[in-house]
Amino acid sequence: MPEEFKVTPWEVTGDIDYELLQERFGTTPIDQALLDRLSAGGDLHYMLRRGIFYSHRDLVPLLNEYDKGNRFVLYTGRGPSGSTHLGHIMPWIFNKWVQDRFGVEMLFQLTDDEKFLFKDLTLEETGSMAYENALDFIALGFDPKKTRIIVNTKNVDRLYPIALRVAKKVTFSTAKAVFGFDNSTNIGSIFYTTMQSVPAFLPSEDAGRQVPVLIPCGIDQDPHFRVTRDVAPGLGYPKPSLVYCKMCPGLSGGDKMSSSDENATIFTTDSPKAVKKKVGRAFTGGCVSVEEQREKGGNPDVCAVYKYNHYLFEPDDSKLEEMAEKCRKGEILCGECKMCLIEKINVFLEQHQDKREKAKDVVAEMTYDGFEW
Amino acid sequence: MPEEFKVTPWEVTGDIDYELLQERFGTTPIDQALLDRLSAGGDLHYMLRRGIFYSHRDLVPLLNEYDKGNRFVLYTGRGPSGSTHLGHIMPWIFNKWVQDRFGVEMLFQLTDDEKFLFKDLTLEETGSMAYENALDFIALGFDPKKTRIIVNTKNVDRLYPIALRVAKKVTFSTAKAVFGFDNSTNIGSIFYTTMQSVPAFLPSEDAGRQVPVLIPCGIDQDPHFRVTRDVAPGLGYPKPSLVYCKMCPGLSGGDKMSSSDENATIFTTDSPKAVKKKVGRAFTGGCVSVEEQREKGGNPDVCAVYKYNHYLFEPDDSKLEEMAEKCRKGEILCGECKMCLIEKINVFLEQHQDKREKAKDVVAEMTYDGFEW
Repeated sequence: MPEEFKVTPWEVTGDIDYELLQERFGTTPIDQALLDRLSAGGDLHYMLRRGIFYSHRDLVPLLNEYDKGNRFVLYTGRGPSGSTHLGHIMPWIFNKWVQDRFGVEMLFQLTDDEKFLFKDLTLEETGSMAYENALDFIALGFDPKKTRIIVNTKNVDRLYPIALRVAKKVTFSTAKAVFGFDNSTNIGSIFYTTMQSVPAFLPSEDAGRQVPVLIPCGIDQDPHFRVTRDVAPGLGYPKPSLVYCKMCPGLSGGDKMSSSDENATIFTTDSPKAVKKKVGRAFTGGCVSVEEQREKGGNPDVCAVYKYNHYLFEPDDSKLEEMAEKCRKGEILCGECKMCLIEKINVFLEQHQDKREKAKDVVAEMTYDGFEW
Repeated sequence: MPEEFKVTPWEVTGDIDYELLQERFGTTPIDQALLDRLSAGGDLHYMLRRGIFYSHRDLVPLLNEYDKGNRFVLYTGRGPSGSTHLGHIMPWIFNKWVQDRFGVEMLFQLTDDEKFLFKDLTLEETGSMAYENALDFIALGFDPKKTRIIVNTKNVDRLYPIALRVAKKVTFSTAKAVFGFDNSTNIGSIFYTTMQSVPAFLPSEDAGRQVPVLIPCGIDQDPHFRVTRDVAPGLGYPKPSLVYCKMCPGLSGGDKMSSSDENATIFTTDSPKAVKKKVGRAFTGGCVSVEEQREKGGNPDVCAVYKYNHYLFEPDDSKLEEMAEKCRKGEILCGECKMCLIEKINVFLEQHQDKREKAKDVVAEMTYDGFEW
């Protein structure tokens, strides 16, 4: 019997049983037929191969439309409550692959209002974090011509009228059932989900026709998009399709990387020294002594260092499998794996931080509706 | 025992006991000392003399600040759910007097979002009504240099960040208790009150210092402003002061003029013929026959025609009293009173409709933050 877990857009606790979660939320596993269609004879992203992106809603009709020439728009987002860490960029990397694979436009929503309402942060703080997070998003190489960044308080003139239309169709009963709100919830938090619905409808609004939308994101966001999908037909918009990923684990062995556990979280602006220190302290599946580990082997399944490779730093399946094998046989020690991961992360971060600096030159022109940061 | 009545921002039913309402809401009667301060040796507006504006919150500290040279900003509004009728413009006429009397700036809020959320109307409809209502407001002669018109969906970029700050401080419990919401209320309606709070805080935001605000409006709006006043100190804004009026009665004898009762309501765009027809059918305090009325006299206290004079068309107290006396003595018949009122309304409307046309030339320059209609 697994420990009870909880997954909401604002709280992830316990050991997540992703199969059970899928069942609870009523999403659909991504099967081989879908994987074949997504690869279309080309490369399949490792996050799909490994079941990191593992569940979906209505991917089939979306791909059918695409095959008929009706291109979808990608939409994902980020709640700017703090600095970007590697757990945040994981689904963005996947979005970038989808953008390239299908040659589609993309909307990236920064929900500064949400984080103001749900966290002990000022709007100035969430606004400034939105800018910082946007740099990391851009640094991943999204096509500046095809990608637009929404900041809720900056684009509210375009978002609010659509949010109102959503709001009129959602009762407090629904919000309570979907999000677990109660009488002590503030009325901004109750309204907020409407703002997260809007980018799913903006492409249709802007084009004046039904534009399909695909939202690749963490499965913790499903409650929002259940609401979005429920109201869509009544508003004359197509229901967005979704593809959901598992949460990127932290270095301390937990199920979700968290900014609140700074020492177990690699931020995109971390120095090589900080990375070395954090990975050095990571939870692994090793034994208490070198001798024991050489003899009995380690356990990659519980190892945060292995998981980092699995989720982010070893896209080559055979190399990943080799790593696991060596670990299980005691042929490689935790220190070696850590050194190797530190090297990979620091190579990535050096390049990323460079691209992040360059992102400052394009961040203004990538805003939705041309707002000023 | 009076019939049970109900007064909320969205519903006014029953025979309103205004003293009891004041007690329930916890507002303060306007006493002679306050009237003296408001007139300051000059004319006192008939709506104050007659107790049409009869109740307040914190008028004294507002006037104290004014005497010290700290000018307040006026704020009132309108929910654009339909064409403007005479009941709507009644408190605006009073606002105009306050603007002139104190030489102050004023904000006029058109809550197109509210009427979309609470009524069976589209945003296009409430938006177009907002424009129509604005023309009537301007036609009353507000100083175009000192008056700015807010339309919620048009000014949302400035309103939303402040609304969020309000929202974070208001729980669903509070909204439920203040407005009578329940689980079936839509989440936009629950959020809406925050938008009505904002113009009370905008003057302070814009000036970067604590600017007092006075809100003259119908007492049915008090629930909103109780919330506004409760959250103000925590947000660093002064609590707005309020001065409340009774509801303008309709021609059918009801306690509140209502657009839904078209035949008992004079709209600002009504033709002389329509006015004649509507007033002709008005409920009066007359007897069933001319003979009986000559003998027993009529009852002006229940007469809609008399009330129209009291609330809107006879600012001269002695003339109004004379009218009542003549009625009670049977010296004047309902038909004569009606003809007299029809004449007054049509003179007013002819001028008003002319000013309303001219308002189209300035409606653009009177927008808050220069939005486009």
